[in-house]
Parts: sequence; structure tokens; C-alpha cells
Amino acid sequence: MEKYQKYFNTIESELSKIEYAASPDGLYAPVRYELSLGGKRVRPLLALLACELFGRDCRHALNAAVGLEIFHNFTLLHDDVMDKADVRRGKPTVHKVWDENRAILSGDAMEIIAFRYIARTEAPHTGAVIDWFLKTALEICEGQQLDMEFESRGDVTEEEYIEMIRLKTAVLLGGALKIGAIIGGANETDADLMYRFGESLGLAFQLQDDWLDVYGDPARFGKKIGGDILNNKKTYMLINAQRRADGADAEELSRWLTATQYDPAEKIAAVTALYNRVGAGELCLQQVDAYSRRAIEALRRVGVDDAAKQPLYDLSTALMKRDH
Amino acid sequence: MEKYQKYFNTIESELSKIEYAASPDGLYAPVRYELSLGGKRVRPLLALLACELFGRDCRHALNAAVGLEIFHNFTLLHDDVMDKADVRRGKPTVHKVWDENRAILSGDAMEIIAFRYIARTEAPHTGAVIDWFLKTALEICEGQQLDMEFESRGDVTEEEYIEMIRLKTAVLLGGALKIGAIIGGANETDADLMYRFGESLGLAFQLQDDWLDVYGDPARFGKKIGGDILNNKKTYMLINAQRRADGADAEELSRWLTATQYDPAEKIAAVTALYNRVGAGELCLQQVDAYSRRAIEALRRVGVDDAAKQPLYDLSTALMKRDH
Repeated sequence: MEKYQKYFNTIESELSKIEYAASPDGLYAPVRYELSLGGKRVRPLLALLACELFGRDCRHALNAAVGLEIFHNFTLLHDDVMDKADVRRGKPTVHKVWDENRAILSGDAMEIIAFRYIARTEAPHTGAVIDWFLKTALEICEGQQLDMEFESRGDVTEEEYIEMIRLKTAVLLGGALKIGAIIGGANETDADLMYRFGESLGLAFQLQDDWLDVYGDPARFGKKIGGDILNNKKTYMLINAQRRADGADAEELSRWLTATQYDPAEKIAAVTALYNRVGAGELCLQQVDAYSRRAIEALRRVGVDDAAKQPLYDLSTALMKRDH
Repeated sequence: MEKYQKYFNTIESELSKIEYAASPDGLYAPVRYELSLGGKRVRPLLALLACELFGRDCRHALNAAVGLEIFHNFTLLHDDVMDKADVRRGKPTVHKVWDENRAILSGDAMEIIAFRYIARTEAPHTGAVIDWFLKTALEICEGQQLDMEFESRGDVTEEEYIEMIRLKTAVLLGGALKIGAIIGGANETDADLMYRFGESLGLAFQLQDDWLDVYGDPARFGKKIGGDILNNKKTYMLINAQRRADGADAEELSRWLTATQYDPAEKIAAVTALYNRVGAGELCLQQVDAYSRRAIEALRRVGVDDAAKQPLYDLSTALMKRDH
């Protein structure tokens, strides 16, 4: 990602200015903390690159890009409260450093600060950018609600799962690219293609995340392998394994899903072996591949010189080649 | 408030349309529930009346008015989570009907829906309305943060308390009036005066709320009398009683503030008697009166025919004459 350094510098410089002098510090310190945890800054980068693709200086998309990143971090902050997660990017979460009330309220403030940046987009694109942003923001809440509902449901279908990760993850990548394209001056067809590029890329990315949680190289994945299996998380692979397994496999899977006392390593090994037998891992990789190709195909159809798209092709490759 | 019925009908009709068909229901049912709890709808009414004061049909301010009411209800929803409040307007709070996660997430969605209405304000006022709304929204979060900080502080000054209630309550009344005025086509001076009218009215209203919590007629106040005293809530009266009490009074107040075992009725009676001795109730009423007069003075200076202001004069009177 070194080639994007100049964009990252611009983004970090803008993020570092946010509400530093603002008072009360009790409200804004958690906002600064959450934004300082880092992350790949993929969403603002996508917005800036999309703007440049249509020949306009990416600085015009900077406010929107920063708004997207703040909103993304706000969702992480509140998701961590709802999931009771103790750690985010190797550091204690806001509700662990402070408390839950502080996490709720500073998240609410981040949501407002995100809107403030989005609304600073210059005319004549202000209205279109705000509309797409708010539509996307609400869809992300819908995705999080579905994700929470799925925890207590045993009959989640593959289609429902794809729709959930589309809402929770993919629409914001699509929205970032579309918003950047709109600010860049893209026509409607091209702005839509940029959205579909991001949406498909987001689905590929999330499905790959599911796969890596089981099959990734622990040294490169950055999280512990098998966490989803231990939590009975309804991933693409578990849903398909439940659908495909029969006889002894079905019984074994059901036993692991209801077991309360077990050796974690043993459960991970057994469920992984079962995924292998029914071909769930392979099926997941096929989907990753299909959505990746769909993403590239959408980008290819965007009506600008293909050479100008190289930074976006490269970024998709970098995102998908991350850890295996 | 009967004379405002046509405005209330318009507001309720618009609120009742919100996200009814939206999915997942798990996200939107709490939003509809919170909005159905009622309330006086003062903020949207102020925005509509302010718009009409400058001669423009109040329907132009309807989107902004509805956005203000949704935002206000969102703050109540999240405040109830933070305060662990079980009841809101005589009904169980969202986190009691569902759970905390649902209350956090549906509140986040309400915040977005509020922005969506605000952003629908027509040109050429869209930008100014969004700016004032976001500034006000962030100030409300700042007020809530100060309110939470004051709970664990023993040295809150009168000025700090006034600033906290200004942010938590008064700025939204000011913002509603200013936004309505902007949409109505008011010049900057008049829009500012409308803001100051609302801000002072909000301070008078909140200080009166403190007073009523001690001295109100239980049959008309709608809440139990003495709740603030039992909770050691740092109201205008407690802060001034602490400053004014000396000798035996100071000792007695300190004893009640640290007591863990007591008869509730006895504590309420003793602290009320102490407020009477040091004149804290009287001082509070003087402030209510001063801010009320300041509000009316600002409205009087607005550069339109005084007769046209009658609905706003009447509304201030109705708000301040509510329950004693």
C-alpha cells in the first residue's frame, strides 16, 4: 500500500485536526482515541481515488472521505459496545478505557461530526453526496441489526447471510466509491458502476475474511484462527456446511454447535475437517473469486481510459491478497 | 395548546409515515415506538411558527421540524439507556421493551433519519439549516456529557450548571426557532433574535422544571415531587443552597447528601425546609422570571409586526404556566 502514501498522509492530517480544541474533553477524548487506533483507511482512499479517476483533484473529495472514515469508526465504536468486545486493533475499546455511557455518547457525537464533514462537500454535488451517504449509513444499521438477529436464529439462509454482509460491510465501500465518483463529475452510469465495483469488492472481502478465519496463516491474518468456529458464528461456511452435511457429519456438526464443554483446539480441528469433507471452504473461495471478478468487471466497464484505473485495480488486488 | 391543533396534526401525520414499511422490523419498531410515546412536540411547533412569523407557509419548514423532533426523541432514547431509566412518558423505555443493544442501534438509526429530514430542506436554505442543526446537535451531546460529569463532582458552580442546561436543553429550542426563521426568509439579525428567544425560554423552562420538582403540585406536575432531592441531583437550587448554607444548615445539608439510610419523605421535607431557609427556591424563581423576560424581550425586538408574534407569545406563556 506504499504507493498510496500521499493519500494516507492527507487523510491522517485531516483526521488529526478533528475537534482537538473542543470541550468538554470528556466527550471528545474518546472520539480522538477511536480515530487514533488506525486501520487501513480504505474507505477514504477509495473515495479519493474514485474522484481522481474522473480527472478531478482528489482534494475536492477530502471532506466526504474524512466523513466516511469517521462514520466507519463510529460504527466500530458502537458495535464494540453491543458485542462487548474488549479489544480493537490491539488496544482496549472505548468502553473499556472509559465506560459504556461514554462510548454511547461519544459515538453519537462522532455520527454528527461525520455528517458535518459530508455536508461540507461543495456545490453542485452536496445534495447527491448527502443522499447517498445517509442511505448507506442507514443500511449499515440494518446490517448490524440482521447480524445480531442471526445470532439467535438457526435457519439463516445463504441469501440472507449475503444480504447481511452486503449491508453491514459492502455498501460502505460502494458508497465511498460512488461518492468519490459523483464529486469527480462522473455521469450516472459510471457512478453506478463504481458503486457495484465497491459492493462486489466488499462482499469478496468479507467472504474472504470468513475463509481466513478458518484457513488463514496465523502469522499473517492478525487474528486468532478459528474464532468464528468457537463462537458458532453463522458464516458462509457454517451455513453451507449445515446445508450440505448429512448422516454422521450432520450429527457431528450439531453436537459441536451445542457442546458447552470442549477443548477449543479440538473443536476447531473437527469443524475444519468437516468443512473440508463437505467442501464448504472450497465453496467459499469460489464465491470470493466470483465476487472479485464481478467487481473487476464493473470497474472495467467504467467509461474512462483503462490505464487511469490502475490504482483501483492495484488496490483491489492488495486488499484481496492480504494474508494468504 | 388547542389553538395549535392544526400544526400538531401536520406533525403527527408526518411522524406516523416514518419508515413504516422499512425492514428489518427489528431496527425500525423501536424507532416507531419511541416516536409514538407522544410528548408536547414543542420543537417542531416552534420551527413551524417561526417560519410563519416571516410570512412563509409553514409547510416549507415541515421536513426540518420533523427532523428536529426525531433528533430530540433520539436523545431521549439514548439518555434513557445512559440513565438506566425504566419509564418514559408512563411507558417502558426502549431498552426495557427490547434490550440495550436494540436501544443503542435504533437510536443510531434515528439520528440518521433525523438528518435525512433536515437535509430535505429546500434550496436556498439547505446549507444554513444543516449547519445550524449539526452545531446544535453536537452541543446537545456536550450538555449530556457535562450532566454526567456533574454527577460525580461536588464543586459544580452556578455558571457551569447554567451552561450545562443551556447545551442540554436550551440550544435545541433556540435552534428550532432559528431554523424555522431561516426557512421563513428572516434576515440574520431576526434569525439571531429568534435563537436568543428560544435559548432564554429553554433556560427558563429548565429552571422552572427544577423548581417544580420541589415545589410543584403533584397532581399537575406529572412526575413525583422530590425526585431530584432524593437523587442528590445538582440542580440550581442545590448548588445555591450549598453556597448559601452555613453553620448548622451546611452540616445538615451535607449529612443528607451523604446519608445512605433514610426515610424518603423525611429527606424531601428536610431539604425543602432548608431550601426555604436559605432562599434557594425564591432565587430559582427569580432566575425563571429573568430568563422569561429576556426571552420575551428578544421576541419583541424581532423586526416584524408585533401582532404576528401572538402565537409565539401565547406558546411561551403556555409553556411557562404549565403546572403551578
